[in-house]
This record gives sequence, C-alpha cells and structure tokens, in this order.
Amino acid sequence: MKSFTEYLTFTLPARVGFVNITSRLADCLARSRVQEGLLLCNAMHITASVFINDDEPGLHEDYKRWLERLAPFDGSPRTYQHNRSGEDNADAHFKRQIMGREVMIAITAGRLDFGPWEQVFYGEFDGRRTKRVLVKIIGE
Amino acid sequence: MKSFTEYLTFTLPARVGFVNITSRLADCLARSRVQEGLLLCNAMHITASVFINDDEPGLHEDYKRWLERLAPFDGSPRTYQHNRSGEDNADAHFKRQIMGREVMIAITAGRLDFGPWEQVFYGEFDGRRTKRVLVKIIGE
Amino acid sequence: MKSFTEYLTFTLPARVGFVNITSRLADCLARSRVQEGLLLCNAMHITASVFINDDEPGLHEDYKRWLERLAPFDGSPRTYQHNRSGEDNADAHFKRQIMGREVMIAITAGRLDFGPWEQVFYGEFDGRRTKRVLVKIIGE
Repeated sequence: MKSFTEYLTFTLPARVGFVNITSRLADCLARSRVQEGLLLCNAMHITASVFINDDEPGLHEDYKRWLERLAPFDGSPRTYQHNRSGEDNADAHFKRQIMGREVMIAITAGRLDFGPWEQVFYGEFDGRRTKRVLVKIIGE
Repeated sequence: MKSFTEYLTFTLPARVGFVNITSRLADCLARSRVQEGLLLCNAMHITASVFINDDEPGLHEDYKRWLERLAPFDGSPRTYQHNRSGEDNADAHFKRQIMGREVMIAITAGRLDFGPWEQVFYGEFDGRRTKRVLVKIIGE
Repeated sequence: MKSFTEYLTFTLPARVGFVNITSRLADCLARSRVQEGLLLCNAMHITASVFINDDEPGLHEDYKRWLERLAPFDGSPRTYQHNRSGEDNADAHFKRQIMGREVMIAITAGRLDFGPWEQVFYGEFDGRRTKRVLVKIIGE
C-alpha cells in the first residue's frame, strides 16, 4: 500500500470565497503514483470547507447569498454565544457545516474518477487568515 | 490490496426523488470479494446526492418539503444568478449540498457494517436526465 | 494492509447533545498500530451525527438553537408525515443530515492528522436511547 500526504495553504482576502483546487489534487495524485485507491481532501480549519460542485461564477454568488440566509453573519455576542469568546465568526461554523468538511474521491486507472461537471473547491467562511487543507492518498 | 469500481445509472422521471440502492452496494461488495476495507459511494453529478437514512416513505415526503423550504425551486434568473446560464436548477445544487455527495461505509467480515436502520439512497434533485453513481471498494 | 474495527456506545440523557470523542478515536488508533492510512468514524443510527468542529460550549449552544430554527422539533403527525409511523423524531433526521453522518480522518506518522482546532463530536438529536458509533481504520 502506498500513501501520500500534502498540505495546501490558503489566505483569502475576503471573509467568504471559493477557490477551485481540482488541478492541485490532480498534481498530488500524479506525485503519489497511485493507480487504484482513495483520496481524502479536508479543510483543517473549522470555519472552512472542501466541497465538490460546479465551477460556475453565478452559482458561487448564489451559494454566498443562500448561506447568508440560512446562517447570517452577526458579530454580536447576544445573537451567538460563541461570539462571547472574543470571536465574531459563529456564522462561519454553521456555513461550513452545510458545505461540509471533506470529500472522498475515487482513484481509478491513475486518475481522479469524476463525473462530467465535478470540480473541487476550498470554501472559506472566515478569511483573511492563513489556513490549510490536507490531501491524503492511499492505494496501490 | 484489492480494488473494485462500478458505475450505477439512474434516470428518474420526476425532478426530485429517492431510490434505495443498498442491495446494489451489497452486490458490488460480493463481487469485489473484499472482507475488510472501505466502500465509497458518491453521486457523479452535482445536482444529486448519495446519503444514508431511513427507508420510510413518510420521511421521504418530509425531506422533499423540508428541502423545498430551505432551498426553494425558482427557475428565474433574477432569483438565482446560476439560472442566467440557461439552467433552472440552482435550487438543486443547494439541496444536494444539504443531503451530501457521498457516503463511506465500513466493510467488516465481508459485509456492509450498518446500524439497524441504515439504508443508502440515491437522491435526485434535477431529474429527467441520466446520471451516474460511483461505487469504489478498497481492502483485502 | 491492517484493519481495525471498534464500536462506541452512547446513551445521552437529553434529546439533543454533543460528546467530544476525539480521545477515544486516538485510543482506537493506538490499538490499531496503523501508521499511515484512513480512519472512518460514523454514527450507526439515523438520528445522530459524527462531525468535526470546535470544542467551545457557547458554539454548541448556538448549534442547538440554529438547528432548531432550520429543522424545528414538532411531534405532530400533521406537521411531519414520518410521525404518523408512531415516532416523534422527524426533525432529528433533518438535523442529522445538516451535521452529517461521518468523518474521514487522515492518519500520518501514527497520529490523527488534525488542524489546530479540530475535535470530533458525537451529535445526538433523539437521545434517551442507546446508540452506537463505528470506528474503522485501514492502513499500514
């Protein structure tokens, strides 16, 4: 069994944003030399996500507005108890929960086994700080 | 290490629907001859889900109504920017995000290691087109 | 390839609650003797979750309130069809879907490869009954 580990680093200038990381995962896979196996990609921070969806800018704007409706930003410690700890990012923990922490991707014949529109994104919900994403590959 | 790959195909007649695929995964596992390992099952399309919950028809109706409340269908390009691309399915991308893309299932002693009520479903949120689900098994 | 399987048991006194299970997963990993691989941890019941977030009590109270807003408890069979089956827990199936069934954790150099704040929780949404969590490890 082969294994491969890589850490990707992101510092987004805005509070909320999405970055397509599909080609970076394909690069990790090439370096791992795994032909058949599984790739785990997860945010290592609890106000960020890794998710798979469409690389369509209009949809990404829709996601931002929709997430804001389901989990509105409010820095007040009266609205969210978490913000009594000196943070203002309780909403980011909720948004990350809807969008998910991680994805598992099948590796078949040496490539990421994706459907026609599947692209992998880093999702940031409390940006302007440096965060990491883990890529772990196991297989043969 | 053994590996096994299968693609399941679905064409649902309605926009939204759920199909129990548990027995199809058990069939894949039997063909893989894996005794200890992991099974990944994921939607290969970005307006569909694979998820684990109860096979109870009332609950499935509740899911449809609840998802419609959290992520209402609206084909207008004014409501969702994604729909300016010629699609009318922005809501389906949101619904899939809540229900999830994939499940990981432990394989123990040659069977899917489920709790008493766990059943696996294909969840469709923009049907009337053919879509695929990936089954990947690794183990020994 | 090594594999390891463990079942954790929980009986929470309230309907909704969160339990930090990170140290129990680290204990499983130590017993597995796996140095490089993947750990799957999933709820085996369909009204419970396993998720990764912050161990901050205020945030946990916020999660409870937020989930209640998105998926309110209502035991009536008129509100949720699932409750016609004699249950009153339809809302718990929704809450579990938002918080997720499972997490995958990378194992690197013999330890759970976590970011600085990542902690693993059992999330209960229909407590006062005994439920199980599965821990599966594969690797070398």
